[in-house]
Amino acid sequence: METGFSKQLDDAILEISKLPGIGKRTALRLALHILKMDGNEVALLANAITALKEKVCYCKECHNLSDTEICDICGNPKRNKQIVCVVQDIRDVVAIENTHQYNGVYHVLGGIIAPMDGIGPKDLNLDSLFERVDHGGISEVILALPATVDGDTTNFYIYNNIRGKIPIVTTIARGIGIGEELEYTDEVTLGRSLLSRTDFEQSYLKH
Amino acid sequence: METGFSKQLDDAILEISKLPGIGKRTALRLALHILKMDGNEVALLANAITALKEKVCYCKECHNLSDTEICDICGNPKRNKQIVCVVQDIRDVVAIENTHQYNGVYHVLGGIIAPMDGIGPKDLNLDSLFERVDHGGISEVILALPATVDGDTTNFYIYNNIRGKIPIVTTIARGIGIGEELEYTDEVTLGRSLLSRTDFEQSYLKH
Repeated sequence: METGFSKQLDDAILEISKLPGIGKRTALRLALHILKMDGNEVALLANAITALKEKVCYCKECHNLSDTEICDICGNPKRNKQIVCVVQDIRDVVAIENTHQYNGVYHVLGGIIAPMDGIGPKDLNLDSLFERVDHGGISEVILALPATVDGDTTNFYIYNNIRGKIPIVTTIARGIGIGEELEYTDEVTLGRSLLSRTDFEQSYLKH
Repeated sequence: METGFSKQLDDAILEISKLPGIGKRTALRLALHILKMDGNEVALLANAITALKEKVCYCKECHNLSDTEICDICGNPKRNKQIVCVVQDIRDVVAIENTHQYNGVYHVLGGIIAPMDGIGPKDLNLDSLFERVDHGGISEVILALPATVDGDTTNFYIYNNIRGKIPIVTTIARGIGIGEELEYTDEVTLGRSLLSRTDFEQSYLKH
């Protein structure tokens, strides 16, 4: 889609529509919105985008995003560095942080083992995880990967490489989501939630 | 939503989520995508946004967007300046231009009369339309406003102000969309398409 009357607008539509999930029509809508925005706000937006790319790096410890060499989570003396939560993606770190239920540190794999997509262990931040384990001082590794076949494959791969080196290896609970009806839960999840049933009192007191 | 580990990322999420239809989650997804983009591409995006705001202005003739004082449509000697198509918004200019069926010029109102939203004739580019009409040289005004109550109100308002000054005042055809089933067309549209039925041969030869 070219407007044919403004090269600047065409340029903006082209660049904005390169972003994932944004088509030409949405790009036009966003461009027209930007035109109506205050000059300062537009500068803030453009600067935030530039600064993001220029200043953000990856934490040398956990591969999370960071403004400094070591991220604020790894560098925080209040966090428990004996517990490492292994996640697929930075978005999962954000999701877990937003629960305010976790005080340990993370290890971001940058993906999961997916043979069908040609993603093997060497494509992920796995060696650095095993190095952290070998380095010692970790009492628990929590595997918080997706509840998919690829997630399970990756769980087993990690488990086989760290078993015996870590006192406790756990995985996040799979079961019925809070507020979910049994009727609409798929049978695999429901079956597993029965097998992994927990003590009522413990469950009741914990949450 | 704050990540709590990268101020730059938080800034980018905040600024991106100010855009219409983009929530915090989508903003995070876009920000992480921007991080994976090539440095040049990010610069292109940021520059396109800045240039859009700084360099684009409104055409003095038709109020369309333009990189220059007079837009490329008004300034094009091949366009028929005797025909003026009145539209609500710049997006409508883009939509009509994309049909490649129109060779006249435009007049962008910047909205329509909407008493319920407190938008009156003074809030729109109506006076400049009437000035163009008074100035002479226009043989046809096409009213291409939305087929809504507010659109009809605006149509009547314009018509009452230009009747007798312009040889022909037309409105775009309302009827069944191409590829649409009669069964699923609302009765008002279907009724009007019956009343506005056109000669088969003429219709067949024209399209």
